[in-house]
Amino acid sequence: MSKRAPVLTPQTQDFPRWYQDVIAKAELADNGPVRGTMVIRPYGYGIWELMKSEMDRRIKLTGASNAYFPLFIPQAHLQREAEHVEGFSPELAVVTTAGGKQLEEAIVVRPTSETIIGQYMAKWVLSHRDLPLLLNQWANVVRWEMRPRLFLRTTEFLWQEGHSAHATQAEAATYASRILNDVYADFMINELAAPVFVGRKTPAERFAGAVNTMTCEAITRDGKALQMGTSHELGQNFARAFDINFLTSAGERKFAWTTSWGTSTRMVGGLIMIHGDNDGLRLPPRVAPIQTVVLAIKPDVVELAARIADDLKAAGTRVLLDDRTDISFGRRAIDWELKGVPTRIELGPRDIAAEKAVLVDRTNGTRTSIPLPGIVRSVTGCLDAAQVTLLNEARTLRDDRVADVSDLGHAREACEAGGWARIPWSLVIGIGEKELAEHGISVRCLQDADGGIPLSDDDPDLYALVARAY
Amino acid sequence: MSKRAPVLTPQTQDFPRWYQDVIAKAELADNGPVRGTMVIRPYGYGIWELMKSEMDRRIKLTGASNAYFPLFIPQAHLQREAEHVEGFSPELAVVTTAGGKQLEEAIVVRPTSETIIGQYMAKWVLSHRDLPLLLNQWANVVRWEMRPRLFLRTTEFLWQEGHSAHATQAEAATYASRILNDVYADFMINELAAPVFVGRKTPAERFAGAVNTMTCEAITRDGKALQMGTSHELGQNFARAFDINFLTSAGERKFAWTTSWGTSTRMVGGLIMIHGDNDGLRLPPRVAPIQTVVLAIKPDVVELAARIADDLKAAGTRVLLDDRTDISFGRRAIDWELKGVPTRIELGPRDIAAEKAVLVDRTNGTRTSIPLPGIVRSVTGCLDAAQVTLLNEARTLRDDRVADVSDLGHAREACEAGGWARIPWSLVIGIGEKELAEHGISVRCLQDADGGIPLSDDDPDLYALVARAY
Repeated sequence: MSKRAPVLTPQTQDFPRWYQDVIAKAELADNGPVRGTMVIRPYGYGIWELMKSEMDRRIKLTGASNAYFPLFIPQAHLQREAEHVEGFSPELAVVTTAGGKQLEEAIVVRPTSETIIGQYMAKWVLSHRDLPLLLNQWANVVRWEMRPRLFLRTTEFLWQEGHSAHATQAEAATYASRILNDVYADFMINELAAPVFVGRKTPAERFAGAVNTMTCEAITRDGKALQMGTSHELGQNFARAFDINFLTSAGERKFAWTTSWGTSTRMVGGLIMIHGDNDGLRLPPRVAPIQTVVLAIKPDVVELAARIADDLKAAGTRVLLDDRTDISFGRRAIDWELKGVPTRIELGPRDIAAEKAVLVDRTNGTRTSIPLPGIVRSVTGCLDAAQVTLLNEARTLRDDRVADVSDLGHAREACEAGGWARIPWSLVIGIGEKELAEHGISVRCLQDADGGIPLSDDDPDLYALVARAY
Repeated sequence: MSKRAPVLTPQTQDFPRWYQDVIAKAELADNGPVRGTMVIRPYGYGIWELMKSEMDRRIKLTGASNAYFPLFIPQAHLQREAEHVEGFSPELAVVTTAGGKQLEEAIVVRPTSETIIGQYMAKWVLSHRDLPLLLNQWANVVRWEMRPRLFLRTTEFLWQEGHSAHATQAEAATYASRILNDVYADFMINELAAPVFVGRKTPAERFAGAVNTMTCEAITRDGKALQMGTSHELGQNFARAFDINFLTSAGERKFAWTTSWGTSTRMVGGLIMIHGDNDGLRLPPRVAPIQTVVLAIKPDVVELAARIADDLKAAGTRVLLDDRTDISFGRRAIDWELKGVPTRIELGPRDIAAEKAVLVDRTNGTRTSIPLPGIVRSVTGCLDAAQVTLLNEARTLRDDRVADVSDLGHAREACEAGGWARIPWSLVIGIGEKELAEHGISVRCLQDADGGIPLSDDDPDLYALVARAY
């Protein structure tokens, strides 16, 4: 397909523009009428639904239950945890009129449900028997955005936020880390084919009110960092602020230890920027709303194409029959490439005569003539391979992009050249972190020598991964 | 269990109080801090999740796709469809401050997404090839409530709203009716075991802007009506207001025909009021988050109870092991009855010795001693039967409650005695509908002689079903 004029701005020419183009042309999302809001179109929402379902399964395996807390929070309630509210106050949307009247007390549209969930946890947790309390919520939240970007940073976004309360610090720490590793990182690696780094945030980068923030960080194809999900140990800070206490089996009253953790529609943005190429999206089959398109080139092959689509569907593949033979073959092929459908069967009259079809692999761009008998196995094999290929490709790209450096100057150079740097934390801690920040570079996370998550940020021999971030 | 003091206010004594008690004691929901809002607790949300999943499956079978539209709508946009906005304006919540500043243009929190979806449909629909456009959205909406009641009428509620655009009036009518029958009524009857009436709303009761509103109406155990879901034909009213037009294959530009349809967390309230009894909820197995509890009476049977629970789980039953042997057996049994878990296995040391267990059927209250071998079959058989029993029981209760009458006076009497009346529409139309309204009685729907949905509201020989409604 090298001869056609590019449908998208090439990635190397202007990556942010390419990103915008893909979202529009693959019909993923539109801007909403209120600045910074987003309309998620059916194809984009289909990706999110698959993500949600796989995330939800993993969250429930940790023992958590879903619940729903109100959109509206009295402004006064938000002020209980001082440090927390400070983090959010510039971003709040405030309702002052309702039901035709001025409200006596202003109401905030939730920027997170941290405070309201804290309040109800306090009501529900009475004894050690009520612990651990493991809650999750799928909901919309609002944070007023000055520089919105579809999926990455929108005034309203969809997310899940988990909140748990435990009897001991150790249990809370174990749970927060289980969420980061077994839910978030596992989901991102195995479903999104996104080889994220896991690590610990520096004190400066921690969530307001947390004692430890753990993160999954992805590298985009333009070499920047994208925070994909975080899990926080909140110590007893929120428990004290909201009075979440319990009676131990020995009859003592103690504060609980809480955690919180979240991921959002931002992951859709990540998916686009981690795998997309100059022809459009490339979706990992596990989160592709359409895994295979069966494209009938001419009307006389529609019947056979439909039969092949049925066979693929019966084999458990998410399949779509493209029988729009009144639209040119080329235009349709380009559209499916834009949408990143992992595999495409092209069926023309000549193919039928030869009992063959063309299997196009969107992931690596190959076109193979395959025999009609056994076509289902060819497609499912191609899908399995695509999932692995995308992960491996992203992993190679990731490893190529990270420079091991031993001073701040080289770290800065690596980031300014469109990459990341790994540098001993001892060289960055304190003044170094501020210096890098002046150049728009942040410490994405701290890791131990093996790439694992350190238990504290003053362990010796830690490494800092630094980059420019979205 | 007849000897114990009632845990709940008896239904015949004070039904609304019983309803409130059940919601609190079965841990379904709590009031939120902002008046009229609701916290849906894990057990209540578990019911909603099962409902959503079954509804979503049916919606997708009609060809619709899910999408997501913004929470915030510019106030000016809402005013495009005059009749529609009039219906909602007293209920709006308005955001006037955001990001620390007074907004230049006020923003409304969506009371429905009708107008914003209309606007995007206009953008996406260009040619006849883009039709039908079948969209659905799962979201929260806000309507300021003066007399809130948990699940039935809350300031914020969760719902699905579907919106479709078609090339012809006939296609739109067929689709709206398919949604009402194959999605809504089918779901309510087969999953919720709620034998709803289907029918057509009178012009006075129609959705603002609709040319035809079809409805599913349930009878609660106190003889009132509860609207469980509606599907609207909007004619070309919204298409004209939002300029949803398309080029026909003949090259003419025409307005589309649109529909909209919705159901909400109100269905959870319906479920409670249709099946609950003086001991608490009674959940139809198909929407029960826990279908079977295996209750270990003493510590020495916990191991066997766990094995039975595993077997039930392996057979596809949603099961919970209750091994809290430090809490009295009686208290736990009462709790599970309150929560309406359809079946309960009680296992004590004496039962084990006899290779037996007690199977309690929450739906009809029977306790049966059953042999341990074959216990899985006994439970699944009991669950299948419970689903049928609840539907039949509700159907009998429904039929007993509806009086056939031939004048307005008797209709009023029937409703004031806690029932419904079926009366020829010709006796109600016009002044009759207003007279009944003065006594708090409304026409719930119009039906033809066979209980089907009439194609117009001036067909001869129609019947009106009239009642007091929640």
